[in-house]
Amino acid sequence: MTPIITAFERSPDGGKGLARDTRVRWALEEAGLAYEVRPVSFAAMKEPAHLAVHPFGQIPTYEEGDLVLFESGAIIFHIASHHAGLLPDEANARARAITWMFAALNTVEPPILDLVTVKFVEADRPWSKDRMPLVVDRIRHRLRQLAARLGSVEWLDGDFSAGDLLMVSVLLRLKPSGMLDEFPGLAAYVARGEARPAYQRAFAAQLAFNTARPTG
Amino acid sequence: MTPIITAFERSPDGGKGLARDTRVRWALEEAGLAYEVRPVSFAAMKEPAHLAVHPFGQIPTYEEGDLVLFESGAIIFHIASHHAGLLPDEANARARAITWMFAALNTVEPPILDLVTVKFVEADRPWSKDRMPLVVDRIRHRLRQLAARLGSVEWLDGDFSAGDLLMVSVLLRLKPSGMLDEFPGLAAYVARGEARPAYQRAFAAQLAFNTARPTG
Repeated sequence: MTPIITAFERSPDGGKGLARDTRVRWALEEAGLAYEVRPVSFAAMKEPAHLAVHPFGQIPTYEEGDLVLFESGAIIFHIASHHAGLLPDEANARARAITWMFAALNTVEPPILDLVTVKFVEADRPWSKDRMPLVVDRIRHRLRQLAARLGSVEWLDGDFSAGDLLMVSVLLRLKPSGMLDEFPGLAAYVARGEARPAYQRAFAAQLAFNTARPTG
Repeated sequence: MTPIITAFERSPDGGKGLARDTRVRWALEEAGLAYEVRPVSFAAMKEPAHLAVHPFGQIPTYEEGDLVLFESGAIIFHIASHHAGLLPDEANARARAITWMFAALNTVEPPILDLVTVKFVEADRPWSKDRMPLVVDRIRHRLRQLAARLGSVEWLDGDFSAGDLLMVSVLLRLKPSGMLDEFPGLAAYVARGEARPAYQRAFAAQLAFNTARPTG
């Protein structure tokens, strides 16, 4: 049963790979799974048909026979639970890798997403410029802690895991800001993630998806 | 092996149950597990000993023999994976319950936490008052979608699960704001969560912890 995921019909980033379908594509590639992609327009995301699949009207979703999932973290966990290569077998190592999945999404990504709020969502507000340094400082605080934990090892806890996949995906959002360059250890960690063949295939697939088709 | 969790030596909310140890206490109570609590002061949270357990210097953490975890979502998932009562056995239902865990933490909680930013962290900034309606609107948007999905059922997907435990915990943060009252279905859902004996025991335990001991 080939899983079907949804993606933006046209990603707002134009194919930079920052939309959340890229994370799921990456996990599918690491697991060696074929998949199909169903594009969803911004208008269709607010329609009952899509809200029945994703109650918050977002992408990606994941359909595999009777199973319908949303939330990229949950989709990646599902893939990792059923295929080798994304979570260790040993129980304690597995629990720690799952911890890094939650840490990426709940502790590291929220301050990074606030950069989107201040730069784009609230860009035209009078406080936008003055608020920026506060937002950047909160990100820097998290990056400093993450860099300290990572140290000079290759991945967060032993072999590459779904925890690294999500952490690298979250950190990639910072690339346009240049902030990663302040933390060479983290920049090298992100580069190791990007160098993985599975990431390369996922990135190429989303780029082709976002640029190759005629605009509908 | 009795697990040991960490909690604020004195919670900033003075025992209202909004610190994240309450969620973990609740999960432990649902699973019928005894546990110990180690208090951590704000000063100690920044020290190497605590950072070795929690790289981002927060609470709660979870120690069970050799296993050391952080991130309340990951801790609750670990408890739910090893004990009955928090995740369904059937594979698809289980994947959907896990989806609600991620949805609570990644889609519903971040806009709610922005209320803490605007009301407390940035309270003395000149934009605080003008920014508030934007933050509140973003929360309301999510609540509207969540209320639509919940409809008139008791829990988000079948029986009570760790997904409901986290969603109710996240929504409880809104209680002081009065915003839940705009969504009677969600207010009733939260009340059903609070009425569970396991929640009652967890709440009472954190209240006693935060009020009964002399200040150190």
